[in-house]
Amino acid sequence: MDNIHNYAGSMMSAMELPSTVEWGMHCCWLLAQTPPDSPLPRRRLAEFYGLPEPYLAKALKALVNAGILVATTGPRGGYLLARPAEKITALDVVIAVDGDTEMFRCTEIRQRGPVGLSPGQCRRSCGIASLMHNAETAWRNELAATTIADLLTSSAMGSRSRATKWLGTLAARS
Amino acid sequence: MDNIHNYAGSMMSAMELPSTVEWGMHCCWLLAQTPPDSPLPRRRLAEFYGLPEPYLAKALKALVNAGILVATTGPRGGYLLARPAEKITALDVVIAVDGDTEMFRCTEIRQRGPVGLSPGQCRRSCGIASLMHNAETAWRNELAATTIADLLTSSAMGSRSRATKWLGTLAARS
Repeated sequence: MDNIHNYAGSMMSAMELPSTVEWGMHCCWLLAQTPPDSPLPRRRLAEFYGLPEPYLAKALKALVNAGILVATTGPRGGYLLARPAEKITALDVVIAVDGDTEMFRCTEIRQRGPVGLSPGQCRRSCGIASLMHNAETAWRNELAATTIADLLTSSAMGSRSRATKWLGTLAARS
Repeated sequence: MDNIHNYAGSMMSAMELPSTVEWGMHCCWLLAQTPPDSPLPRRRLAEFYGLPEPYLAKALKALVNAGILVATTGPRGGYLLARPAEKITALDVVIAVDGDTEMFRCTEIRQRGPVGLSPGQCRRSCGIASLMHNAETAWRNELAATTIADLLTSSAMGSRSRATKWLGTLAARS
């Protein structure tokens, strides 16, 4: 199939979440296991997941701005969840990192052209726009129904234990 | 909120569908009302919705490539639906125009870093990736459940009648 879909002629779908969403979700997962008295420095988060620290910094800053993480400064400073993991949904993280733009933007093309509808005839939302919004709502509802705490609970034992062990090693070292 | 979410530093969410999706959906809606013996020329489609013809051309080409529209050439050439409107879902149109990339791409960062999991420990999909895929499935299911025929049925009477009238005028002129 020809992937013609935007003016720039890129071959990628416009609907791809940036990697920073993946990183942000995983960082919240790790921070949900971090002892409250040992904030995790950015370089440690980057180290744990093998991520480029300068780009990770942007995702972390977005999460702080959205009130999902708190950042403390100083020699023992670092990141912690700003509220209990039960109170942070996956949707919160996605919106914090990627923004809250609607996927589908209706430009009311039904009002244009030689026989375009009048604004008065368009009080009811266009069926196409309604459908697109319903689909987006289904996506959001799914993400809003799962919290960071749920993700932690469903994690494989090996996955959690390596994190706990690594966090313990850090705490012992400091 | 700071909209830091990708390397390019754009302020837009990465998750915005291109306008060509809106155009493609509306064009299919109009072509579902076009008499099979009167294919609709591209310039007429552009005219009906007040759209820039060269950009609309790309969306139409993508719909032809995906087998949703057929294009005939010649003085009376134009576009028609390639199959009944009941057999074209909104998801078909979105995928044709915007591509079939997954919204979330898991890069298995759980396998990276000093205590990364082994591939053997990652036979089960990561909980974060599963959640993101479930959300995308909810979005796709919603779009797959509505056809162009459904959109036509739910259209306001005024909306359909202006289309029918305009198409009739074109046919009378040709």
